[in-house]
Amino acid sequence: MKEPENRFEVIYELQIEKGISAFKVAEGICLEQTVEVDRSLVCNSFISDEVVGQIVKLEPLEMGKYRLKVSYTWDVTAGNIPQFFNVLYGNISMKPSIKVVDFIGDHPMFPGPQYGIPGLRKIFREMDHPLLCSAIKPMGHDVQSFAHMAYKMALGGIHMIKDDHGLNDQPFCPFEERVVKVSEAVNKANAETGGNCMYMPNFAPSLENFDHHLDILKRNEIKGILVSPFLIGLDQFRYLATHESFILMAHPTFSGGYLMHENHGMRPGFLLGKLFRYLGADASIYCNIGGRFSFDLATCKDINTELWSVHPRIKSAFPVPAGGMTMSNLGQMKKVYGKDLIFLVGGALLQSEDLTKGVKEFRRLAFAD
Amino acid sequence: MKEPENRFEVIYELQIEKGISAFKVAEGICLEQTVEVDRSLVCNSFISDEVVGQIVKLEPLEMGKYRLKVSYTWDVTAGNIPQFFNVLYGNISMKPSIKVVDFIGDHPMFPGPQYGIPGLRKIFREMDHPLLCSAIKPMGHDVQSFAHMAYKMALGGIHMIKDDHGLNDQPFCPFEERVVKVSEAVNKANAETGGNCMYMPNFAPSLENFDHHLDILKRNEIKGILVSPFLIGLDQFRYLATHESFILMAHPTFSGGYLMHENHGMRPGFLLGKLFRYLGADASIYCNIGGRFSFDLATCKDINTELWSVHPRIKSAFPVPAGGMTMSNLGQMKKVYGKDLIFLVGGALLQSEDLTKGVKEFRRLAFAD
Repeated sequence: MKEPENRFEVIYELQIEKGISAFKVAEGICLEQTVEVDRSLVCNSFISDEVVGQIVKLEPLEMGKYRLKVSYTWDVTAGNIPQFFNVLYGNISMKPSIKVVDFIGDHPMFPGPQYGIPGLRKIFREMDHPLLCSAIKPMGHDVQSFAHMAYKMALGGIHMIKDDHGLNDQPFCPFEERVVKVSEAVNKANAETGGNCMYMPNFAPSLENFDHHLDILKRNEIKGILVSPFLIGLDQFRYLATHESFILMAHPTFSGGYLMHENHGMRPGFLLGKLFRYLGADASIYCNIGGRFSFDLATCKDINTELWSVHPRIKSAFPVPAGGMTMSNLGQMKKVYGKDLIFLVGGALLQSEDLTKGVKEFRRLAFAD
Repeated sequence: MKEPENRFEVIYELQIEKGISAFKVAEGICLEQTVEVDRSLVCNSFISDEVVGQIVKLEPLEMGKYRLKVSYTWDVTAGNIPQFFNVLYGNISMKPSIKVVDFIGDHPMFPGPQYGIPGLRKIFREMDHPLLCSAIKPMGHDVQSFAHMAYKMALGGIHMIKDDHGLNDQPFCPFEERVVKVSEAVNKANAETGGNCMYMPNFAPSLENFDHHLDILKRNEIKGILVSPFLIGLDQFRYLATHESFILMAHPTFSGGYLMHENHGMRPGFLLGKLFRYLGADASIYCNIGGRFSFDLATCKDINTELWSVHPRIKSAFPVPAGGMTMSNLGQMKKVYGKDLIFLVGGALLQSEDLTKGVKEFRRLAFAD
């Protein structure tokens, strides 16, 4: 077997029915995720010692649950993200009662955040408080309305204004026109206030428009973007962090298939925290308690912990608890989670009679001790 | 409201707890998938009449289940696949008890299969029997071994030899070398037999290698490829069907998050049958009964039905029931499913003492009445 650094470990949780051998299930995972044949067809020592996943540990937990640690060589991943996810949770995603809870290892295919918490704090010159973000919404407004909305918010001193993640290249609100007009509006406000509010367009083009839309962003000196890895592809997200210089705010849309089940899918902290961060997210949005969605407090804290954790190579990233947050949630969030957060208030801010005043109140509440 | 052809309908199944209003859940879906704000913030008639999803029908089924039909304008999808999936099942994938069971509509963003059942039957000059496919495997062999394996199988008269879907660009079996050597071996066998066996490499590169790997395929006159839409991205799959001329065999790996739950995710026949076909699959692999995986017979038949169904624009596609099939499954499969299938036997064929003889036996059994 190669030296440990040439291998990584994946931790699975298995729910095993009575009368089924946990070891057989574990052995099945090792084979399915690599050679896809019975052990009897593993015909040489290179394949059995190197290629097939190896059970490192299999331990029973309570109630028919087992914790399984499997070691794989990085070589089976071919050093690329599509094949990494295939090894991690490809075919076995179609088997019941197998959940990925963690992986241990590092590889240059994971760029990690380019800015992360230290980089963003520096950019926004905001070392002691949570960062503040809102969204232009609802979909259906024309570009001019969104530009006005962004202008008003930027005047109030918000750090980031992102597109709602459904704003794409709709005929009633085209991508290029929106990028041009909204960034102009935000720049105008910045010139007036001396601030550095950032407009973050949503980047979710078809592959044909990938490079063209990147050009539009660069021509307009856009510094940060909103990206949904499960919409544009996990590798496409990694590509942006590797080859472009945008601040990346990850959105979890369409990832729910992997997040919602006790005994299947992936631990949310692992997917939205660790993996999104490893793939390059400077900030990761998730469904906070008290909003429209359903993560519980422990899950939210777990996502935060994964984004914040110290790593020798990979920068820490900002948690963005969201999904229907209101001003009244801010104090509680800060109390429970601390200050290394991006507060994202969207719809609730739009209810303000005056958006600039609304943002000022948002700042006041978020910055209060 | 616009004419019906400018809108499409999505059918959801909801599992509603006692005391919860099914109408409120339905209304929540219409808002979440489009404007992402409360109804009170939907501030003009264009947004409320055009942009927000509209409840077409909400009917109770048995045991707290409801069937909901929502109409959306195609405009909200921006005519691209990332945003289509966002509208179909983006944020609501992170809510429990909502399952997508169907959609009704057609749009030029869906290319459909380029060849489909009629095209593949013509290419292989096989009008009356199932088509036969096997895989080179297990991962860990070098290119020369796979080339020999493919040569022996091609001599026996198999139609398609695909890469195992885990074969990527591993150091012990590089993509380019494999494409070159295995296709040479298959061409040699074809020259000897007068046959037209096709080698289908697995295409799952990082985005950096996307065009380069396409070039390798074309330089080697590869006609068909294996592609996993959930690994390279759903839009990347659609892109291949739109801009390249390969026969596309879709692999379901890493799609399990959407397939395994009674009240969440998507109906497997909808995802692996209808959607993969609409996105361009000429053939779609799924987990057959009697193999290593767990779809039941009704689910398998449902996938077949979706792939076969008549459509004014979109060609029918081949079901590929797979996942540990053996020679003894063939008769039953044909009896239950009919002959418009691709039989995929991988590991079981490798157990043959002589692969050419094994394939001949595979033909005999598959073609028997």
